Amino acid sequence: MLNKIMSSNKVKFSKEYLVVAQNASGRNLNVPVYRFVSSIPGPKVYIQSSIHGAEVQGNAVLLHILKALQSADLRGEITLVPNCNPVGSNLKSGEYTLGRFDPVNGQNWNRAYHYNEGLISEFAKKINANDSIDVIKREYRQKLTTSIEKRLENEWGLGLAECLNLKLQLMALQADIVLDLHNGPVSTRHIYVPEYAKKSAKYFNIPHVILIPNKFSGALDEATFCPWWSLSDSLQKRFPDSKWDFGIEAFTVEMGSQEVIDIDAGKVDADGILAYLSYKNYFEVPLEQPKNMTRQAVYLKDYKIMYSRLGGMVEYVAKPGQRINKGEVMARVLNIDELEGEGAVTSVNAPCDLIPILHFPSASVLGGTQIYKCFTNYFEI
Amino acid sequence: MLNKIMSSNKVKFSKEYLVVAQNASGRNLNVPVYRFVSSIPGPKVYIQSSIHGAEVQGNAVLLHILKALQSADLRGEITLVPNCNPVGSNLKSGEYTLGRFDPVNGQNWNRAYHYNEGLISEFAKKINANDSIDVIKREYRQKLTTSIEKRLENEWGLGLAECLNLKLQLMALQADIVLDLHNGPVSTRHIYVPEYAKKSAKYFNIPHVILIPNKFSGALDEATFCPWWSLSDSLQKRFPDSKWDFGIEAFTVEMGSQEVIDIDAGKVDADGILAYLSYKNYFEVPLEQPKNMTRQAVYLKDYKIMYSRLGGMVEYVAKPGQRINKGEVMARVLNIDELEGEGAVTSVNAPCDLIPILHFPSASVLGGTQIYKCFTNYFEI
Amino acid sequence: MLNKIMSSNKVKFSKEYLVVAQNASGRNLNVPVYRFVSSIPGPKVYIQSSIHGAEVQGNAVLLHILKALQSADLRGEITLVPNCNPVGSNLKSGEYTLGRFDPVNGQNWNRAYHYNEGLISEFAKKINANDSIDVIKREYRQKLTTSIEKRLENEWGLGLAECLNLKLQLMALQADIVLDLHNGPVSTRHIYVPEYAKKSAKYFNIPHVILIPNKFSGALDEATFCPWWSLSDSLQKRFPDSKWDFGIEAFTVEMGSQEVIDIDAGKVDADGILAYLSYKNYFEVPLEQPKNMTRQAVYLKDYKIMYSRLGGMVEYVAKPGQRINKGEVMARVLNIDELEGEGAVTSVNAPCDLIPILHFPSASVLGGTQIYKCFTNYFEI
Amino acid sequence: MLNKIMSSNKVKFSKEYLVVAQNASGRNLNVPVYRFVSSIPGPKVYIQSSIHGAEVQGNAVLLHILKALQSADLRGEITLVPNCNPVGSNLKSGEYTLGRFDPVNGQNWNRAYHYNEGLISEFAKKINANDSIDVIKREYRQKLTTSIEKRLENEWGLGLAECLNLKLQLMALQADIVLDLHNGPVSTRHIYVPEYAKKSAKYFNIPHVILIPNKFSGALDEATFCPWWSLSDSLQKRFPDSKWDFGIEAFTVEMGSQEVIDIDAGKVDADGILAYLSYKNYFEVPLEQPKNMTRQAVYLKDYKIMYSRLGGMVEYVAKPGQRINKGEVMARVLNIDELEGEGAVTSVNAPCDLIPILHFPSASVLGGTQIYKCFTNYFEI
Repeated sequence: MLNKIMSSNKVKFSKEYLVVAQNASGRNLNVPVYRFVSSIPGPKVYIQSSIHGAEVQGNAVLLHILKALQSADLRGEITLVPNCNPVGSNLKSGEYTLGRFDPVNGQNWNRAYHYNEGLISEFAKKINANDSIDVIKREYRQKLTTSIEKRLENEWGLGLAECLNLKLQLMALQADIVLDLHNGPVSTRHIYVPEYAKKSAKYFNIPHVILIPNKFSGALDEATFCPWWSLSDSLQKRFPDSKWDFGIEAFTVEMGSQEVIDIDAGKVDADGILAYLSYKNYFEVPLEQPKNMTRQAVYLKDYKIMYSRLGGMVEYVAKPGQRINKGEVMARVLNIDELEGEGAVTSVNAPCDLIPILHFPSASVLGGTQIYKCFTNYFEI
Repeated sequence: MLNKIMSSNKVKFSKEYLVVAQNASGRNLNVPVYRFVSSIPGPKVYIQSSIHGAEVQGNAVLLHILKALQSADLRGEITLVPNCNPVGSNLKSGEYTLGRFDPVNGQNWNRAYHYNEGLISEFAKKINANDSIDVIKREYRQKLTTSIEKRLENEWGLGLAECLNLKLQLMALQADIVLDLHNGPVSTRHIYVPEYAKKSAKYFNIPHVILIPNKFSGALDEATFCPWWSLSDSLQKRFPDSKWDFGIEAFTVEMGSQEVIDIDAGKVDADGILAYLSYKNYFEVPLEQPKNMTRQAVYLKDYKIMYSRLGGMVEYVAKPGQRINKGEVMARVLNIDELEGEGAVTSVNAPCDLIPILHFPSASVLGGTQIYKCFTNYFEI
Repeated sequence: MLNKIMSSNKVKFSKEYLVVAQNASGRNLNVPVYRFVSSIPGPKVYIQSSIHGAEVQGNAVLLHILKALQSADLRGEITLVPNCNPVGSNLKSGEYTLGRFDPVNGQNWNRAYHYNEGLISEFAKKINANDSIDVIKREYRQKLTTSIEKRLENEWGLGLAECLNLKLQLMALQADIVLDLHNGPVSTRHIYVPEYAKKSAKYFNIPHVILIPNKFSGALDEATFCPWWSLSDSLQKRFPDSKWDFGIEAFTVEMGSQEVIDIDAGKVDADGILAYLSYKNYFEVPLEQPKNMTRQAVYLKDYKIMYSRLGGMVEYVAKPGQRINKGEVMARVLNIDELEGEGAVTSVNAPCDLIPILHFPSASVLGGTQIYKCFTNYFEI
Repeated sequence: MLNKIMSSNKVKFSKEYLVVAQNASGRNLNVPVYRFVSSIPGPKVYIQSSIHGAEVQGNAVLLHILKALQSADLRGEITLVPNCNPVGSNLKSGEYTLGRFDPVNGQNWNRAYHYNEGLISEFAKKINANDSIDVIKREYRQKLTTSIEKRLENEWGLGLAECLNLKLQLMALQADIVLDLHNGPVSTRHIYVPEYAKKSAKYFNIPHVILIPNKFSGALDEATFCPWWSLSDSLQKRFPDSKWDFGIEAFTVEMGSQEVIDIDAGKVDADGILAYLSYKNYFEVPLEQPKNMTRQAVYLKDYKIMYSRLGGMVEYVAKPGQRINKGEVMARVLNIDELEGEGAVTSVNAPCDLIPILHFPSASVLGGTQIYKCFTNYFEI
């Protein structure tokens, strides 16, 4: 890391570059790491964007967050890592960006973060009822850090996605609040929130909320909160009289559609994130208030993927965010072999009441393509 | 070819399948060929869609044309070939369709049609002043057909794109009117019209017209009209007292954005094509009238490609179809290495008055990416 | 299924086509299913090849097996499905075949087979000590079949890879012996064998054997043997006095390098498979004997992946199958930025005694690329 | 350009970096430029490698050339640019490198060099019979340089491949001898030589020579020699009594198969190039002698592409470099739908006596795939 540059009175600002990979020309690939450190204690925040290379709007959001922070009274510290995947961001295939997975082996760039279940249960056992939250946090972070560092030093090397993920995770791990900025394909705004942090969901300006359980599937948000959730669950069982709240929250925020950047729209999303950070006492004076809006939520099990049964050309009739009743037309599939008759267009109907959150970004689909992801059994929060 | 199916009194309808390629499993790939043949003489029409695999909207247009033809009083005959590129239509790369070129060698699917300059000049020499247009057309078509068939039988084989193109061209060659239905990336409707057929441009419901010269660059429209244009030019010089009009017209029609199908919008484009065919006396009673609209045109030399100088994330501020004055902002490029200062956003300005017709469909661009195509020096027709 | 064609006296031969997917043109994609059914009872065998589209040599092996079967005295029945992935086989990207994963989402084509842990333990509970093996097999197969069929009928549809896998698995599930024919990138011949079937390993003509545990990771061999292994384990615990052997074996056979077909070499691999089937009493008179050869084995945990630490251009010095001692040079990485000095070439050394089994097929590697897979702690069997 | 580093007494050595593109992260992409400048006058040499990203062996050749030059007595100057395409070198798609064309638009990376026919004829007209060769060379180079620089400053920007090509061409243009190091797919060594420089062909250690005419098709060798060939032709016609030899030679050298690097084999190719440079008086004392070997040549028109008629799985029976007689089997195509009968394997036979020089690197081919390139009507030189 290098290149410290500007700073205010109470708040030190720095910009550094972290090497996260090496390309086939043998050159280092790095990501910019912007950091504000306040002399006033407070929460530590980590935000990254574009781990999936085609999901670029988060970079516009970080632009506005960074501008707002330059004149704000911060507490604690914040680390911003835009365009955090220099491999995925640069892989064009045709006019689009092949940014979701490693082109060599199909590995999703957001599924190789580190999670060490054994470490968690082992650590939990050694805690005593009267250990202080701060000490536990410090020691646990140290253990988790060591576990990642050891993995990075693996004698046989490490896969590219895992290596990239772990280098970012080492930064995220030091934070109390972690935001991973994504986009859907063609998508309305939505956010993944751990069930225990449901209350926080209404501070973002995001109308659709997915509540996720304590289950690690490889993503950064899970890699961040699962170890703390498991730890507090475990301690709560052993010491039910204390309250074991470590104050760690992590979210995957999906801010509209991939392949698109809209700088002004980024301001709106930035404001929502600043409202959440205000609520979390990250500023001496709250910067933003959340918008007054209806927020619909589902449990992850009710966030359904609809796969196309047919191959063909699909018109996406149901738009992201629109309420659809059971039986209504969601999509129409054109069959070029039957243009002259009834079989020319086949409707795909909603199997139940639902809200489509995102749809596939191309009309051309093989059978078995994920054409929609939908809220079912949704409720207002 | 096989599978003749339905027919009316004066008009015979058939649907057949033409094998155009063979895949790596060794299976034949075919395209559907819909045909209406009227017992009343009239022009021959050929329309195909989706030679570029991601440009699918033409298939919706053909659906509506086919429906309209089923109850119309036709003259002559019409051949409709939807989804005419079974290789390009099926090549997914990430969520999008890699449909513009052969993935093996980069060959554009719309640049390998046949053009035999020697044949043209040789044929022209043998015409006499009093040869009838009909006889010339028949014999010329026969020569051109033979030339393509000979190429298809080449002892050393033929490249995939060329083979596909020639099999389609053998059908198009028999027609007086050829329409090749395309889409732009993110695009307003526009049409390529040979300069001599400028008058026809105002029958389509398309606001932007590119007038192209008699120069073959490999595409189907050029491959169709260039031989006739050259022939009539040559005869006009030798026999200036006669009028050498063979009545051949060919157009590339770009109906909006790729990767999208909108069945209802296809009706509007179908109506425009039917208005043009009505004007060409293809129906006993005109089916449609062209819309009353402003149509802007340019000569091909004034249809400018704007390349990005910078690599980065691009917001396309100027929208397709919008009039932009010299110096106005067309695009903004986000620089993730300079988010904290003035260098965060760089504007790309219009070098002259222009109308952007289409822009690149992805925010992520390397330097040297074609970000816009623009009308300059445009005029109303 | 259709198209029954030829048959002998005792053995019925049929060729049918099974639809496994639908492409973006809306056309069905099918696979050929060759089947020999003997009137003499015996084991049921299922062999498929090329689930990874670039791993084509198995098709040449099936050619020779099929020829041999045409004049053999079979027992039981055998089903052969060459080129079983019509999507993966046809996806070119540049000159090569992008055949390991779904290009839309990165899903490995050999990781979406069905495994229902709940069903297994539930079924095991209902067995009695004196239930006959045959009855258990029939009923268990019925349960597993129903479980897959139910999944295929899922109201929300199913992903393409899962759909393809399940349709193949429905056939494999009826067999006692399942062979899944693969290739490595640049690779020596090797075979994955469940630990309990170690004895069978020496009947194939394959010098490198990986012994795998009872753990399902999505592949066909595991999906085939894990349910039976778990069942017999469970019954063995409950009824230790009986022997619970269901006679089910499944193998992934890796027959050399991908992207290459060598018809004559396929004969050698076919002979090995026929030797194994002879040992399994599949023929009235054994067709082939296994070759006398040294076979090295490892447990899966000792089959190590070596990742490149550096990006750059790699020369693979250690050849597949060659014994390498700790510290010997395995690869050399060329650094084009340091051609003039010591840094031009960096050696990658073996971290322990090992046998490289396969290496990456391209010299151009990013850091974090899987450059070798190696036997460590290997032993003769 | 920056970073001058080491130097000897008579010869100055430098290593600099030239920015040739900018990626989608907004970062500059550069290539290393190694240069030796002798105080003793002599020819100027330019060698680049890997303009096609998967053709990496040239980098190993440059390693050995660079080592040899470090202790040689040079005349003139030499510029070496390894891995000259940082975009193409880094585009993985599956395990291979998609290095032949721009993934966005299919543009071949070796077809966008600059050629200005008008400039050439105009310049030729202004020469007088007694103008000195040196003055003509200097002024012509200046004109050509200006023409490229003007193109690079184009108000509307420039495509990526063209931009990359022109920046490299500006260096190549200053040289008298230009070598562009390539590889074939699976290939024997061969070299493209302009017909007028046929004598030079026997100084390289390369057994197969393609003699090419004065026709520009976009490649670097043509872009280098065509302007000089045209100029001398034009002057020869106007002033037949003088000899107009500018001493410019350019070659495309194909050194075996793509995707492979073999550092030791690079020494052999480097020696051949040093033998050619020795013959061209580039060294005070010749460094190397050409090998005594048989060299077969063809005219470009006799260098035939064989396309597959069938799709399917191809075994390449005829090996690169092997003499094949008319009618002999070159390839065998496996048909997985006819494994049980005569149709299982179809032979592809040689249409005439020939030497296959390269073949397609994958067994999986669609119909219309370039499976072989062959010498026909070849002769010894």
